[in-house]
Amino acid sequence: MTLLSINSPDDLKKLSREELPALADELRQFVLDSVSKTGGHLSSNLGTVELSIALHYVFDTPRDRIVWDVGHQSYPHKILTGRRDRMNTLRQYKGLSGFPHRAESEFDAFGTGHSSTSISAAMGMARAFQTKGERQVAVAVIGDSAMTGGMAFEAMNNAGVYDDLPLVVILNDNDMSISPAVGALNRHLARLLSGSIYSTTKKGIDSVLSIAPPLREFAKRLEDHAKGMVSPATIFQEFGFNYFGPIDGHDLDALVPMLQNVRRLALEGRGPQFLHVVTKKGQGYELAEADPVLYHGPSKFNPQEGVKKVAASKKTFTQVFGEWLCDMAHADPMLIGITPAMREGSGLVEFEKNFPKRYYDVGIAEQHAVTFAAGMACEGMKPVVAIYSTFLQRAYDQLIHDVALQDLPVLFALDRAGLVGADGATHAGAYDIPFLRCIPNMLVMTPADEAECRDLLTTAFHQSHPSAVRYPRGSGVGTIPSSELRTLPLGKGEIRRKSSAPAGRRVVILAFGTLLFSALEAAESLDATVANMRFVKPLDVDLIQSLAADHDYFVTIEDGAIAGGAGSACLEALTKLGIQKPLLQLGLPDEFIEHGDYQLLMTKCGLDVEGITNSIKQRFPVVSVANSVISGK
Amino acid sequence: MTLLSINSPDDLKKLSREELPALADELRQFVLDSVSKTGGHLSSNLGTVELSIALHYVFDTPRDRIVWDVGHQSYPHKILTGRRDRMNTLRQYKGLSGFPHRAESEFDAFGTGHSSTSISAAMGMARAFQTKGERQVAVAVIGDSAMTGGMAFEAMNNAGVYDDLPLVVILNDNDMSISPAVGALNRHLARLLSGSIYSTTKKGIDSVLSIAPPLREFAKRLEDHAKGMVSPATIFQEFGFNYFGPIDGHDLDALVPMLQNVRRLALEGRGPQFLHVVTKKGQGYELAEADPVLYHGPSKFNPQEGVKKVAASKKTFTQVFGEWLCDMAHADPMLIGITPAMREGSGLVEFEKNFPKRYYDVGIAEQHAVTFAAGMACEGMKPVVAIYSTFLQRAYDQLIHDVALQDLPVLFALDRAGLVGADGATHAGAYDIPFLRCIPNMLVMTPADEAECRDLLTTAFHQSHPSAVRYPRGSGVGTIPSSELRTLPLGKGEIRRKSSAPAGRRVVILAFGTLLFSALEAAESLDATVANMRFVKPLDVDLIQSLAADHDYFVTIEDGAIAGGAGSACLEALTKLGIQKPLLQLGLPDEFIEHGDYQLLMTKCGLDVEGITNSIKQRFPVVSVANSVISGK
Repeated sequence: MTLLSINSPDDLKKLSREELPALADELRQFVLDSVSKTGGHLSSNLGTVELSIALHYVFDTPRDRIVWDVGHQSYPHKILTGRRDRMNTLRQYKGLSGFPHRAESEFDAFGTGHSSTSISAAMGMARAFQTKGERQVAVAVIGDSAMTGGMAFEAMNNAGVYDDLPLVVILNDNDMSISPAVGALNRHLARLLSGSIYSTTKKGIDSVLSIAPPLREFAKRLEDHAKGMVSPATIFQEFGFNYFGPIDGHDLDALVPMLQNVRRLALEGRGPQFLHVVTKKGQGYELAEADPVLYHGPSKFNPQEGVKKVAASKKTFTQVFGEWLCDMAHADPMLIGITPAMREGSGLVEFEKNFPKRYYDVGIAEQHAVTFAAGMACEGMKPVVAIYSTFLQRAYDQLIHDVALQDLPVLFALDRAGLVGADGATHAGAYDIPFLRCIPNMLVMTPADEAECRDLLTTAFHQSHPSAVRYPRGSGVGTIPSSELRTLPLGKGEIRRKSSAPAGRRVVILAFGTLLFSALEAAESLDATVANMRFVKPLDVDLIQSLAADHDYFVTIEDGAIAGGAGSACLEALTKLGIQKPLLQLGLPDEFIEHGDYQLLMTKCGLDVEGITNSIKQRFPVVSVANSVISGK
Repeated sequence: MTLLSINSPDDLKKLSREELPALADELRQFVLDSVSKTGGHLSSNLGTVELSIALHYVFDTPRDRIVWDVGHQSYPHKILTGRRDRMNTLRQYKGLSGFPHRAESEFDAFGTGHSSTSISAAMGMARAFQTKGERQVAVAVIGDSAMTGGMAFEAMNNAGVYDDLPLVVILNDNDMSISPAVGALNRHLARLLSGSIYSTTKKGIDSVLSIAPPLREFAKRLEDHAKGMVSPATIFQEFGFNYFGPIDGHDLDALVPMLQNVRRLALEGRGPQFLHVVTKKGQGYELAEADPVLYHGPSKFNPQEGVKKVAASKKTFTQVFGEWLCDMAHADPMLIGITPAMREGSGLVEFEKNFPKRYYDVGIAEQHAVTFAAGMACEGMKPVVAIYSTFLQRAYDQLIHDVALQDLPVLFALDRAGLVGADGATHAGAYDIPFLRCIPNMLVMTPADEAECRDLLTTAFHQSHPSAVRYPRGSGVGTIPSSELRTLPLGKGEIRRKSSAPAGRRVVILAFGTLLFSALEAAESLDATVANMRFVKPLDVDLIQSLAADHDYFVTIEDGAIAGGAGSACLEALTKLGIQKPLLQLGLPDEFIEHGDYQLLMTKCGLDVEGITNSIKQRFPVVSVANSVISGK
């Protein structure tokens, strides 16, 4: 196999152009085999096989920088850049990241994970090259959906004014993000594809490129552009880019010469280049082509049989939310459901089916999603924004300035709170408690299990203030949600276990969220009291005060950053009450936690039952001594 | 005067169209007189006189909603909607806000302050109207600079797919934001203005509109558009909007019929309408026309004489930063200065003059600014992002995901930290300490005075990690910065005053930032120890531990939110050390603080010397008793 001889782009460049299509076949098969064994992103990577080969064949990587937007399509790139043999460790603890990662390889020019960052980053690199007087090119590879993110527009707008910028933007147009793409930009792209440009370019590509140098037409276009005499064909030209395409992104005979062309133009100071490439998600694997959503990020599967839909034993929090949303929408006609391009991930598939007129997929556009919700709320609607904790970071200003400041009743359903496992640090929802609880008017709720999640969603929905209900990826202990729409008392926690330890040796654990159950287990050996706090804000200060009356040691636990988190809210409350108690804060440490198995990561963070027990014993030795004595050990 | 009879848009609608220009003259004079007495935004409001009149003359306000993007151009709107007599209270405590404010008037459909939110909000309203089956129109009035903000693009992209959306976007194109506008969009607009469209439309407006209904041409255009047969003239059409204009925004004879036209189209379900209006900042007041930047937001002045540039007695923190940036750039050729459209506000005027090739105004594009900086940093540049604390909220995800996660040395110079006075809650930089210190790798510094600000900027610049130096609006106590580029020890505070109170009655104040000096004054009567902490992160835990050894009561003070703030960091450190001490947290309360005089607001928050002293005495009565005894009172 040729692929086995490719350990770097230098090896790749030794091949003749005629050998590339066969290599693509091997690489595609390798991706399929590899992902079927490890799980990971599939459809997108099958779509970028040829593009990855062509990029490394043409560009002088790693000197030329390739920035993969979002980055879940970078597996072929990883395989071609010396990481083939480590693909079996993908997304595992200490293994390869599922995204580009600077620490992993010099070929990973910029770490990605979130969408729409690539043009800004590549432009920064390109300007740095110019500042240092170095002849290098920066390439951003961005999908059509990522292109709807506002910051991609900000970057296009800014890059377009630098007439000699060595930047190439490659639009990987597969008209198929995780959710179906929405928005005017997609219509524009569809028009380009259906129009004459596509067929002409496709057929005429070789003849255009056979004129060497093929710059005559380009120079004329540039001149016309500068004069403002012609009405440019695409919005990308309006932004000051030279637009080429669309071309077939699976045709190496089209890709290679075109990339050579745009690279040369970029190096020659002809300004930012824009290449529109059309690819197909799942390309070459029939099952994925037919259902790219199912094959977007599968777990391990048999490539012959395909992904089996197995009925999960427990509902995920995402499902609990999805069902609640439908039930609540039946009960309240003012409910509106909003997602920034995460219909499947956020559990909105059923809601869209049942309430299509109240469903909004606004595209990868978190900022717009939140202020759009605020506008809705001004008119008496009751918007529910379903968003991953990590992506809410992108709408933080909108949450503060448009929602909280105006005290509008927008409910944020924060999925993927806490660590997320295989996706790693870019996707962790570790900071939401600190960044939300400092904002006036916000209510912040942390359900401990599925049933409580439903009840807290109902509770939050009925408030006339902004609120957030945060819950983790996957399932919890598996409590069955009520079929009713029940509310819980606002700002009230509950005692789940009572210590029978003697006075002077009594510990209480204040648990926020799903770690309640690990805390309850730990409490058995420690004979600790455990409170399920439910609310970070408003905090149940009365409960804390009453617990302080007959407990000696406090522990707080949360699946989020300790710094400024729920435990700190408890500290603030205690100090305001004038109560001094020894207190141990358990939660995520002040470091970015990389990818790996969720339970393993929680163990590493000391947040499994054993870790919790040990931390408490170590910090409060008297507690374990006391209880050992009592239990006769 | 006609203006005096206008107490609502109903009164306005009673006028004939012929009477409107005279009213505009009166209104312009009123704005000028009013702002010259109170201070406030001037140039932008002189530019929106006719537009405000025309909007309220044509639209059925408040049933039709007008959302003023940014909102500092809404004074004429306020004057026309029943608030004329309160304009003398503008931006003062309990007076009119300098921005639209829902609590202030039913005509203020949406509160603004930050840029680029209007289309999202208005679209939310428009969809709500449709959901409720109500015939109303939502209007977004947005400047050309605000249009470069990514979320405006996200909203345009999303709105364009709703073919019957009762939304009107009015682009108020004055080619002159606070800083000169940059970016490809502005070039596009300039082309539209210089091209044939403008002159044709301008001259032909009456004839076009005399065809009643003037829909024939429009219908054809729509049809062409749907077929994809024509190449649209503007990017706004590409986004699915019906584009009209450009028209002269000071010509009421053009504005009124055109607004009637777009309102009718929006109401008739013809989808989102886009009207391009050209205005001049400072229009009608020669001095402001000549220097709209100087007249952007002046203090009180004599309209006959104009704004006097008075040499301030003390340097502002902004000036200290601007001088440091130039000095540091001389010393280090890798320094890059980046501002999202805040050249003047952030103190970059001199830097741009001296280092034009290392200066980047990226437009109102905070997200792009930060990731662009990250890309630069990857290539060995040393970017300094000069940004207001409140605007960094908009690049929070980029700070986490692109800068901090990759541990890139980007320095954030956070101006306008804490309360900002007259601009009010939308612009307060109250949350940066909580939202920054929970992020791994971040360094967070809070200089107490001007000299320390310079030293901490140098200190931060030399770190190989992301860092933020936060400083308030205006000036501090007036210490003279060194001419050197000195560093301070990382993570080390200093003791500024030592208590001589007896053991058991000793209080220590840990001060973060400029409130150090109020703390020092308060400490005199309390005989307290005072530490200037300098660093929120890394926190000087050694200093806190040693102070705990010989002090009984702790006070923390900061000009930011208490929840999760620097005081909470101290609580976390103490509890981790196993130290229990009574502690009082002083800072901003958990509510949005409205506009008003800065000192007055600080007094209301209990953060003046008297407030600080009283809070400490009240919380720790033994301290004041002890010290009264000692001083013989």
